[in-house]
Amino acid sequence: MELEQARKELLALQEKMSAYEHATALLQYDGDTSAPEGTAANRAHTMAILGEELYKLAIGAETVQLLEYLDGQQEALTEKEQRMVYLLLKEIRHMQKIPMEEYIAFEKLTVEAGAVWHRAKEENDYASFRPYLDRLIAATTRIAGYCAPEKEPYDYWLDEYEEGMDQKKLDAFFDGLRTHLVPLIQKIGAAEQVDETPVRGEAPEEAQAKLVPYLMDLLGLDRAHVGFTTTLHPFTTSLGSHYDERITTNYKLDNYADSLFSVVHEGGHALYDTGSADELAYTALDGGGSMGLHESQSRFYENLIGRSRAFVNHIFPKLQELFPERVKGFTAEDVYRAVNRVTPSLIRTESDEVTYCLHIMIRYELEKRLFNGTLSTEDLPAEWNRLYREYLGVEVPDDAHGVLQDVHWSGGGFGYFPSYALGNVYGAALLEKMKETVDVEAAVAAGDLSLVNAWNREHIWQYGKLYPTQKILRDALGQEPTAEAYIRYLETKYSEIYGL
Amino acid sequence: MELEQARKELLALQEKMSAYEHATALLQYDGDTSAPEGTAANRAHTMAILGEELYKLAIGAETVQLLEYLDGQQEALTEKEQRMVYLLLKEIRHMQKIPMEEYIAFEKLTVEAGAVWHRAKEENDYASFRPYLDRLIAATTRIAGYCAPEKEPYDYWLDEYEEGMDQKKLDAFFDGLRTHLVPLIQKIGAAEQVDETPVRGEAPEEAQAKLVPYLMDLLGLDRAHVGFTTTLHPFTTSLGSHYDERITTNYKLDNYADSLFSVVHEGGHALYDTGSADELAYTALDGGGSMGLHESQSRFYENLIGRSRAFVNHIFPKLQELFPERVKGFTAEDVYRAVNRVTPSLIRTESDEVTYCLHIMIRYELEKRLFNGTLSTEDLPAEWNRLYREYLGVEVPDDAHGVLQDVHWSGGGFGYFPSYALGNVYGAALLEKMKETVDVEAAVAAGDLSLVNAWNREHIWQYGKLYPTQKILRDALGQEPTAEAYIRYLETKYSEIYGL
Repeated sequence: MELEQARKELLALQEKMSAYEHATALLQYDGDTSAPEGTAANRAHTMAILGEELYKLAIGAETVQLLEYLDGQQEALTEKEQRMVYLLLKEIRHMQKIPMEEYIAFEKLTVEAGAVWHRAKEENDYASFRPYLDRLIAATTRIAGYCAPEKEPYDYWLDEYEEGMDQKKLDAFFDGLRTHLVPLIQKIGAAEQVDETPVRGEAPEEAQAKLVPYLMDLLGLDRAHVGFTTTLHPFTTSLGSHYDERITTNYKLDNYADSLFSVVHEGGHALYDTGSADELAYTALDGGGSMGLHESQSRFYENLIGRSRAFVNHIFPKLQELFPERVKGFTAEDVYRAVNRVTPSLIRTESDEVTYCLHIMIRYELEKRLFNGTLSTEDLPAEWNRLYREYLGVEVPDDAHGVLQDVHWSGGGFGYFPSYALGNVYGAALLEKMKETVDVEAAVAAGDLSLVNAWNREHIWQYGKLYPTQKILRDALGQEPTAEAYIRYLETKYSEIYGL
Repeated sequence: MELEQARKELLALQEKMSAYEHATALLQYDGDTSAPEGTAANRAHTMAILGEELYKLAIGAETVQLLEYLDGQQEALTEKEQRMVYLLLKEIRHMQKIPMEEYIAFEKLTVEAGAVWHRAKEENDYASFRPYLDRLIAATTRIAGYCAPEKEPYDYWLDEYEEGMDQKKLDAFFDGLRTHLVPLIQKIGAAEQVDETPVRGEAPEEAQAKLVPYLMDLLGLDRAHVGFTTTLHPFTTSLGSHYDERITTNYKLDNYADSLFSVVHEGGHALYDTGSADELAYTALDGGGSMGLHESQSRFYENLIGRSRAFVNHIFPKLQELFPERVKGFTAEDVYRAVNRVTPSLIRTESDEVTYCLHIMIRYELEKRLFNGTLSTEDLPAEWNRLYREYLGVEVPDDAHGVLQDVHWSGGGFGYFPSYALGNVYGAALLEKMKETVDVEAAVAAGDLSLVNAWNREHIWQYGKLYPTQKILRDALGQEPTAEAYIRYLETKYSEIYGL
């Protein structure tokens, strides 16, 4: 094979893959947004065919030959090409190591388990889900064994979701967090609770809908390339490249803050994705990096920016205009306190900034023990409930509000949860670093995030998937990320709000 | 090749093609409905790649080999398989006959001509479009020569858009129509004009939006498989198979009848598409047949059903509920007359049921002469204006409202217009036949179209593209379709409305 030709083929391969990914993502998006309710089977039919074509393209003999040739020519490749080859080959190696029958059986198992979990959650019936959980743990353990026999299975999965992560690092990280968070939450619980009235009560959909473009503009999203609509559960998706991004929200008619922060959160994901360097478009390096890094950006905008005093002050006149009945008689400070109210709760997705990581730690703790054999799925619900009591001081009334609440395990997604906590930690570390050169508070107060976004673009967004997360963070921070900045941030902010 | 294997491959080929068509149609739909304005280039990038994949699939060597083998085994194939092979091979033969450079040049020409036409229409500048029109006529003449050297080029294109059609048939057909329509329009022009006030005036979008699902249910559309949204120009599209159909409308805020009949029109298209027999799904036979037959169904519901007295009577209470200010002081009969108001006009797409075919005849007349060399593009605008004066009695003020009004020619779509008129004619013939066994008026008056739809399903919809249009019509009507029923329909209806 001739090198120049192979380099061209490498780009053509990725362009083609991006076209299939565009189609698949759009089919998914259509199903989530505007498709009539009876059309799912028709869409699945098409997705199965296009998925198979993409699969053949991604791991077909021609592709393997091309990538292995290029892998042998590392020194002649650019940094970008090396990373493309690495990422594409990584996927192939992964697939090559798993016996086809194991792979097919696992796909089938997750589909079945997903349906069983749905029903089990609705009917509060852990017993029916438990055998599937056993099979999922066994299957993911076997897969980890095929792919990385030298590692503990749970470490393999942690690294899959967050390159470079393992139990040793996470243990240290979570220990540090827990040491500070548990007492902080106890102190908050003993203090006088803040009033959430300023965000509660009837908020018409039309007013909430008007808030969305206002927020998107305020965030600095390019609305020519970022669309928005409503769905049952908010999400962000890229279509084909970082040139077409969609975010969604959902209006809670008795709480305008819900969609407000949802838009700012998804907007953060969209800023990250659309901030990829143009030369990455239609390659495997386009769009945001690891899940932890992605969450670092969405939570950066949602919490560090969106739930800051400067931000709430800035949007307060808009809230007065759109929700006059809600904020009448309240100050911006009242709203600021209301949107930062801390309440230990049962459900992860409804939890606040302070307690969120404890929900994650509970899952991490349990997953570790399920994988190292010190916890059986029989004892899992009781352990779940015990940890919620210990960490958050709440009593779990039933498994539907406990061990059955998250979808992740039913899809075999063990090791995924820690990325959420890492996102919080990365975001706070980045904010501290950013503040060395950018007056973030002044920028937010003025409603002009361009300097903030420019910093994130320069240090994070532009790279897409060009570098591993840990390298991007090291370069941005000048050191390894630690939980210290996050702990400082939470302690300072909430000590002030709760007068601790 | 082994026959049974080849038959399976024939189905697999079509399933795969339908998946690509689904993706492409959805990309198009997304662009027309919810995509942010700056994302067209990104979408075009993906569509070009998927389009090339589909093209390779449709006319690649493996496909040709498969189809030619099956074509040689006709007697062993079912009727459906024979038709699949015929339709798929027809496309291949077409492509094989046109030299690649001619094909590429033509594609390029239509893209350029489209842009030039857009500007020319906006700036009323026929002179700038004329050289492109010359090139388009020359190119389509050459292509016709490659594909069917035995035919006059215009006859080739007529047959392309409506299988079995040629100038001889259309001349006879249009002569008959013209003989009756021109005097009818003159008599209507001399009679007292009906009052359009009942449909005119402010009609809030929310009320119009509520009318859509009401109409869809009334038409008997299965809303689990037919979605609707709003777009600049209304259309209907199938996504992947007849199991997922989307219709769109556009609300004119000063005329609720516009969206009303648009929904009924697009609903007719959707009824037809979704009425394909299930066994045709994911094959080349799925969905509606020729363009003329498709229009016969959309216009059947829009005009023959929707603009009937029984229909207007039935929906009148709903109009009173949604547009109380508009219909206050008017009867259902007033609304019936208003939605059947005849006004000779300049613009085809805004014309009424009676004058519509004259707009088509003018284009047919001019296209014929452009192709047989008896009319030059230099003289075209004057001839256009002369025919509008002669047929419709209107003065064309400028080319933007005359010869430049339609997009079709800029895309090389010569021979396409007659299908619109054929649709009217087919629809009226089908209605007369249907009335032999179905009490259509009683069904419409009762707001229950199930018997009407069942007749259309039995005689038209279920066949998809299994038979050529002319066979479907012959079988349904028991004879060749003629314009007589359509003329009878118009003369009876409008003589009564205008008291002729």
